[in-house]
Amino acid sequence: MDIGTVVGLVLALGLIVWSILLGGSISGFIDMPSVAVVLGGTLGALLINFPLPRIIGLAGVFKKTFFFSLEDPDVVIAKMVGYAERARREGMLALEEDSENETDPFLRKGLRLAVDGTDPQLLEKIMETDVEQIELRHSEGAKILNAGGAFAPAFGMIGTLIGLVNMLSNLDDPSQIGAGMATALITTFYGAVVANAFMLPLAGKLEIRSREEMVIKGMIIDGIMAIQSGDSPRIVEEKLKSFLSPTLREKVDAKSEQAA
Amino acid sequence: MDIGTVVGLVLALGLIVWSILLGGSISGFIDMPSVAVVLGGTLGALLINFPLPRIIGLAGVFKKTFFFSLEDPDVVIAKMVGYAERARREGMLALEEDSENETDPFLRKGLRLAVDGTDPQLLEKIMETDVEQIELRHSEGAKILNAGGAFAPAFGMIGTLIGLVNMLSNLDDPSQIGAGMATALITTFYGAVVANAFMLPLAGKLEIRSREEMVIKGMIIDGIMAIQSGDSPRIVEEKLKSFLSPTLREKVDAKSEQAA
Amino acid sequence: MDIGTVVGLVLALGLIVWSILLGGSISGFIDMPSVAVVLGGTLGALLINFPLPRIIGLAGVFKKTFFFSLEDPDVVIAKMVGYAERARREGMLALEEDSENETDPFLRKGLRLAVDGTDPQLLEKIMETDVEQIELRHSEGAKILNAGGAFAPAFGMIGTLIGLVNMLSNLDDPSQIGAGMATALITTFYGAVVANAFMLPLAGKLEIRSREEMVIKGMIIDGIMAIQSGDSPRIVEEKLKSFLSPTLREKVDAKSEQAA
Amino acid sequence: MDIGTVVGLVLALGLIVWSILLGGSISGFIDMPSVAVVLGGTLGALLINFPLPRIIGLAGVFKKTFFFSLEDPDVVIAKMVGYAERARREGMLALEEDSENETDPFLRKGLRLAVDGTDPQLLEKIMETDVEQIELRHSEGAKILNAGGAFAPAFGMIGTLIGLVNMLSNLDDPSQIGAGMATALITTFYGAVVANAFMLPLAGKLEIRSREEMVIKGMIIDGIMAIQSGDSPRIVEEKLKSFLSPTLREKVDAKSEQAA
Amino acid sequence: MDIGTVVGLVLALGLIVWSILLGGSISGFIDMPSVAVVLGGTLGALLINFPLPRIIGLAGVFKKTFFFSLEDPDVVIAKMVGYAERARREGMLALEEDSENETDPFLRKGLRLAVDGTDPQLLEKIMETDVEQIELRHSEGAKILNAGGAFAPAFGMIGTLIGLVNMLSNLDDPSQIGAGMATALITTFYGAVVANAFMLPLAGKLEIRSREEMVIKGMIIDGIMAIQSGDSPRIVEEKLKSFLSPTLREKVDAKSEQAA
Repeated sequence: MDIGTVVGLVLALGLIVWSILLGGSISGFIDMPSVAVVLGGTLGALLINFPLPRIIGLAGVFKKTFFFSLEDPDVVIAKMVGYAERARREGMLALEEDSENETDPFLRKGLRLAVDGTDPQLLEKIMETDVEQIELRHSEGAKILNAGGAFAPAFGMIGTLIGLVNMLSNLDDPSQIGAGMATALITTFYGAVVANAFMLPLAGKLEIRSREEMVIKGMIIDGIMAIQSGDSPRIVEEKLKSFLSPTLREKVDAKSEQAA
Repeated sequence: MDIGTVVGLVLALGLIVWSILLGGSISGFIDMPSVAVVLGGTLGALLINFPLPRIIGLAGVFKKTFFFSLEDPDVVIAKMVGYAERARREGMLALEEDSENETDPFLRKGLRLAVDGTDPQLLEKIMETDVEQIELRHSEGAKILNAGGAFAPAFGMIGTLIGLVNMLSNLDDPSQIGAGMATALITTFYGAVVANAFMLPLAGKLEIRSREEMVIKGMIIDGIMAIQSGDSPRIVEEKLKSFLSPTLREKVDAKSEQAA
Repeated sequence: MDIGTVVGLVLALGLIVWSILLGGSISGFIDMPSVAVVLGGTLGALLINFPLPRIIGLAGVFKKTFFFSLEDPDVVIAKMVGYAERARREGMLALEEDSENETDPFLRKGLRLAVDGTDPQLLEKIMETDVEQIELRHSEGAKILNAGGAFAPAFGMIGTLIGLVNMLSNLDDPSQIGAGMATALITTFYGAVVANAFMLPLAGKLEIRSREEMVIKGMIIDGIMAIQSGDSPRIVEEKLKSFLSPTLREKVDAKSEQAA
Repeated sequence: MDIGTVVGLVLALGLIVWSILLGGSISGFIDMPSVAVVLGGTLGALLINFPLPRIIGLAGVFKKTFFFSLEDPDVVIAKMVGYAERARREGMLALEEDSENETDPFLRKGLRLAVDGTDPQLLEKIMETDVEQIELRHSEGAKILNAGGAFAPAFGMIGTLIGLVNMLSNLDDPSQIGAGMATALITTFYGAVVANAFMLPLAGKLEIRSREEMVIKGMIIDGIMAIQSGDSPRIVEEKLKSFLSPTLREKVDAKSEQAA
Repeated sequence: MDIGTVVGLVLALGLIVWSILLGGSISGFIDMPSVAVVLGGTLGALLINFPLPRIIGLAGVFKKTFFFSLEDPDVVIAKMVGYAERARREGMLALEEDSENETDPFLRKGLRLAVDGTDPQLLEKIMETDVEQIELRHSEGAKILNAGGAFAPAFGMIGTLIGLVNMLSNLDDPSQIGAGMATALITTFYGAVVANAFMLPLAGKLEIRSREEMVIKGMIIDGIMAIQSGDSPRIVEEKLKSFLSPTLREKVDAKSEQAA
């Protein structure tokens, strides 16, 4: 799993628990009705807001973006340069065999389309529509989390209002006012924690992972287009290296010098 | 009706009611003037903000997007591939008969325009303007709900301010302060519930349904254009499949293999 | 006047007044200094923010968008189809006479340019720049109202802070605390009402009216371009009908069938 | 100076002062530490946020946009039509002399480039990059003011929190609570006034002035391009008049009829 | 280091400390658990939201943008004009030697590509993708800081809620209420200071520095393209000068007149 996510969750929640223990006890912060209103209310609002399959599919999007690792951009460049060399030496058709052995389904599809002699414009359009669809699914996952990050504090406030109204309607025993206020505020506390320690930062990570995947997919499309148009392996490498940060670029340069 | 919407509403409202019952009684949360200020005030603001026919038309948009189901994308692809095959074998004019039997009015219009030999650019423009108009009407429905989701908490606050000012002006009987505050806060509670359990998530669902419909419409436009330009059924299928999620795509692939 | 605006204003303000009367008296909610700070402060901020002629011109924009009614889209289509038929039968120059009798100045200008044989691209550019300028003026009216909707609650809060500070500095008579707080809160109440029952929904209506006018203007531009390029009346009608909602389109279809 | 800005400032501040005097005294609203925290803190945050020269340059941007008046659009049109007539009669080179006498440096540059026979595309690109740079500098001025309008209330709240914490730590003398709260709230009051009566509306005015200047610059670019491409003075006038509001357009029409 | 950033930090923090000392003591504002919740919680949320390498890399982005100074635009123009002159006199190949001595790696790469006779469109694409990648890294730095500026006040509120709930659960000793409230509010105070005196203004400065660098990079790309297309040194200078503010432009004009 993504190590930063784990460390971040442990850090944020650990400090909140430690801060609670310094001035009181955890038991004072556990109130099942508040949990139910915040989590259940937020889930209810999300079910109204998003189609059921998307909310269920969120688990899959998570698994995919947090557990499966992307290929390194320099590995992708090496692969594309290899294909470019073979295409130069032995012709596009020689890539048919490679396309069968390629493990990345997106790259495999691209190679197959290029080998089939698909018109470059059509090839680009098919592959870009593919990428847009993947991006759409990811961005919808981030949208669900962001919506949850907005609904959770709202249901936290709703729960606190319920607690306050109930408390204010029964002011017979003044000694209970403090405890009543405390319980009412816990729902706001839950809403703030759920939104700021889970929903919103996880939405942010999902968006970033998605963008990284889009960069890789963009490199593959540009690479396939360059190979199909007969660019030399050196031009292919130059084009793809422009997607990299300077640090990664030096790494690729070192590699290709070793190879030379 | 959309099952997720029903489940979400029951979940969110059920938990709120349950939470109220745990600490008091429902009767303490029913206050007709507060209902009138929040619902009536929000409706009033919406009537100022949007033309009357649009607010009345909202019911129709709802019925259409929540009760009528969209054709499945794979069914649309199968249809388009069928038309492409017939056009290849028997020529565009053979689609005239099909266009008369087609039940989807948008697809029927597209087929008729293609059969009539309408210039491809004009055909695309006519159909895309159609889609833009439909999208506009849907997005206005979502705008009304989003505006309602902003006005409801504002009128909730207005109602609470009325309650507080009235209470503070009559502080003769201190024992009434609690009850007065409780009643004042109920209006804020209503505003928050109306916005977060109804208006905002329903606006979200309407936007998503509309986007799904746009994807189907986009597939139909691309399919008609491909058929008219004489693409082979296989290219038509490949182009349209790029609109699908991987899961749906495998389903279509399985079907077309069975057919082959 | 726009009936929805009147009904909405009466509904929102009526319910607020009714809610006040249920728990107190209107006199407790009238405080001239609060009115002065909220309305005067908001007007002051708007005068700093926007050029004087625009704020004065706002009245004119209002009058135009709320009192003058737009031509119905189906009337515009009928007109354009009529012009297309005449141009087909008698040539573009026959429209010279029509252009002199046309009452809509925008359509008249377009006809005149077309009759003069203006280059199509130039004609389109001139007319679209015209439309952009009109849109700009309308959107600035909406911007003034939206800014007012943001400044009013801010000056409401400023007035409440003045009331609170004055009250807290003179706590000699505790029996006055309630009344002081009540008066202080009234300014916040005014700010919220001015923003949510006037400024913000009126800005929304103005934007929608403007967009409706833009659709009509867009239909006129597309129609003139089609007539000039020699399109048949049927194509002109088809192009313009794509701007309509399905309900309106059926109305036009019924008409043109009657005519046929 | 811009009369609306002066009137608006006097109105907003005058009403605030009047409202203070009704319920207390100005001295109760003057607290130097609060002034220091709000103004100094906001200035500090702006110094971190923006390069020093931009903040110093803000004074210049102000002077330019509030004191120097733009040429009236109808004067610009008259000038451009004059140049178009001369270019038609005597050729582009005849404009060399005019370009030397032209007082507007932007128009002078455009004329000089046109006289030099610069390629139209290059001429347009050079002049549009010029306009973009001017727009950038103006929009950065507005950004500084808008950022100030966000930082001022935040430092107001920081100051209030300082006051509250200090007061709550020293509750020995309950009679001081009111005065302590009052002083604490003054910082929030300052933040709200600085933001809503100065920073935010001035940012708005700066943006509008900048946009007006951009319209004039756009008219000049379009005019130069039209003159260079040999358009007749009448077409030049027609093109430029589309930038005007109907009121201004009638004024220009009246003038050109007098001239004719 | 950037002098404005230092002065701004000293000013904002100094005034806050001074304001605290006027009404109490610094010790009353130091509470380690509050520091831990605000800083640790914000860091935790950022670790969940952003990949670990980016957060670590933020230090590098800072160092680069705050300590290394950009070349002055007028120096870049002088360089580009020099290259243009040499290319005119001695041909593009003569720039090979210059490209080896050039210290700016981005300009060196551009010269090398131009000397190699790279196709202009390819050259532009490679260099623009380079610039986009640099911009992406900078904008992600600003995004981390902006996210921190949103999370810090949220964790400030979470800490305050913890303090309030703990205090309200233990109301045995009323004399402690003030101190408890004070401690609870300190966390909100920390969140507001961290966001408004550090995170948000630093994000703003980073964005501006990045934009300045992008302008320089844009000048270099335009300059290389102009040199490669054989533009005269005077045209190159004219094109690049349009990137400058009027003040800088006069400086460059003075220089080039001296040179002439």
